[in-house]
Amino acid sequence: MSETNPTSCLLVIGNEVLSGRTQDANIRFLAIRLGEIGIPLREVRVIPDVAETIIATVNEVRQKFDHVFTTGGIGPTHDDITSECIAAAFGVPWEPQPEAWARMEAAYRPGEFNAARQRMAIMPRGVSLIENAISVAPGFSLENVHVMAGVPRIMQSMFDTLAPTLKGGKPIISRAVHALGLAEGLIAQGLTDVQNHYPHLDLGSYPYYRPTGNGVTIVAKGTEAADAETAIAAVTRLIEDLGKTPIQGEPSEG
Amino acid sequence: MSETNPTSCLLVIGNEVLSGRTQDANIRFLAIRLGEIGIPLREVRVIPDVAETIIATVNEVRQKFDHVFTTGGIGPTHDDITSECIAAAFGVPWEPQPEAWARMEAAYRPGEFNAARQRMAIMPRGVSLIENAISVAPGFSLENVHVMAGVPRIMQSMFDTLAPTLKGGKPIISRAVHALGLAEGLIAQGLTDVQNHYPHLDLGSYPYYRPTGNGVTIVAKGTEAADAETAIAAVTRLIEDLGKTPIQGEPSEG
Repeated sequence: MSETNPTSCLLVIGNEVLSGRTQDANIRFLAIRLGEIGIPLREVRVIPDVAETIIATVNEVRQKFDHVFTTGGIGPTHDDITSECIAAAFGVPWEPQPEAWARMEAAYRPGEFNAARQRMAIMPRGVSLIENAISVAPGFSLENVHVMAGVPRIMQSMFDTLAPTLKGGKPIISRAVHALGLAEGLIAQGLTDVQNHYPHLDLGSYPYYRPTGNGVTIVAKGTEAADAETAIAAVTRLIEDLGKTPIQGEPSEG
Repeated sequence: MSETNPTSCLLVIGNEVLSGRTQDANIRFLAIRLGEIGIPLREVRVIPDVAETIIATVNEVRQKFDHVFTTGGIGPTHDDITSECIAAAFGVPWEPQPEAWARMEAAYRPGEFNAARQRMAIMPRGVSLIENAISVAPGFSLENVHVMAGVPRIMQSMFDTLAPTLKGGKPIISRAVHALGLAEGLIAQGLTDVQNHYPHLDLGSYPYYRPTGNGVTIVAKGTEAADAETAIAAVTRLIEDLGKTPIQGEPSEG
């Protein structure tokens, strides 16, 4: 992985993932999209709706990573405390954001822009809004912290708005080869040699277990496509030397 | 949530989740099972195959939580560095574990228990092994850190072995009610009142968007079933007062 790429961290905020009620659907989407724009995801934390935890975590990771993305906790109910926690983390007032307030007030019928909904227009001072195509309530960015909804299709729309505004690095590209019947323990030494030859690539080895057969996929990731391709060519020869049939790319799903 | 329950943290170790190659399948399984045995999951971190990160993270979270579970990074390849990092985190030797070594040596054909496979029998000094029904390579526990495979069905088998050895608290139980056409912004104030009345419950509000219609689910979680039931009964009345039809339980999938 290039050491010149900006890095990112994702905070998944909400009790529902920690309790197992909800299968997370945001990590993988953001991991892929952030790789494509060259801001690879280097850490994810799933944390509960607890103010001290959110504040302390935001303040830790916004120093360690170039960008921090958060999902969840910006709706109108009592468990939606992300926005006020971001204000507390930055030590800025949490106050009505005029543009968000005006737009939301106009979107509701008279009398229905109540106190709970108004909370969605109260934000840390100094934010830029992140629009989305689904709901009237925006997300926001404050410095390098980007606050998005937890509902996947709203989050995805917000990320579509946000992504072109971020200065990324080279895209992270991926090449893969796999083989049925391959044993990780037999190809391991050869893979170590290939990894050592390409220290700036991430070379990963992933066993799979499928109804159509068991095998191993080797994936090379980095910013230089030519390196990834020659590394995977070397792995392809290792697989052939072990008497197995290499298949380029990832195995199909299912 | 009872403050007397032991707490847990999960470390998902591996580049493949951070790159988006792999959809995590372990968080939800462990979240549910840990709730059932009364050791609720309070944080998840997904971290890369980078030694300094693994060591620092393990040493941070093993102080903060009663139990730490790790998944991933205990196979035979160069990117499998969890075991040696746990030894480094605890400051103990990383050395052949006699029981694991003997069992693995016996499982491979003569000459096939090579250096890569031997690494899976090298462990921090002082571990207890965690058996599984799928593969010959065991996981291990060292004090309050429980090291498991990343492949879901192997991890699940290891957790089945491990769970009865852990001293849990009261199980976390869950009650829910949902309604089509419900607006979070209209029920929010009522939910705040219910939450304030039951401070030891986690009351969560989760919008859903489905082909069969949009709505909101309200979930009460805690260790006292009677409290969760009376809280959900109060939410049921709130839904009726808003002219919607409450349906007990979670909406069906899909």
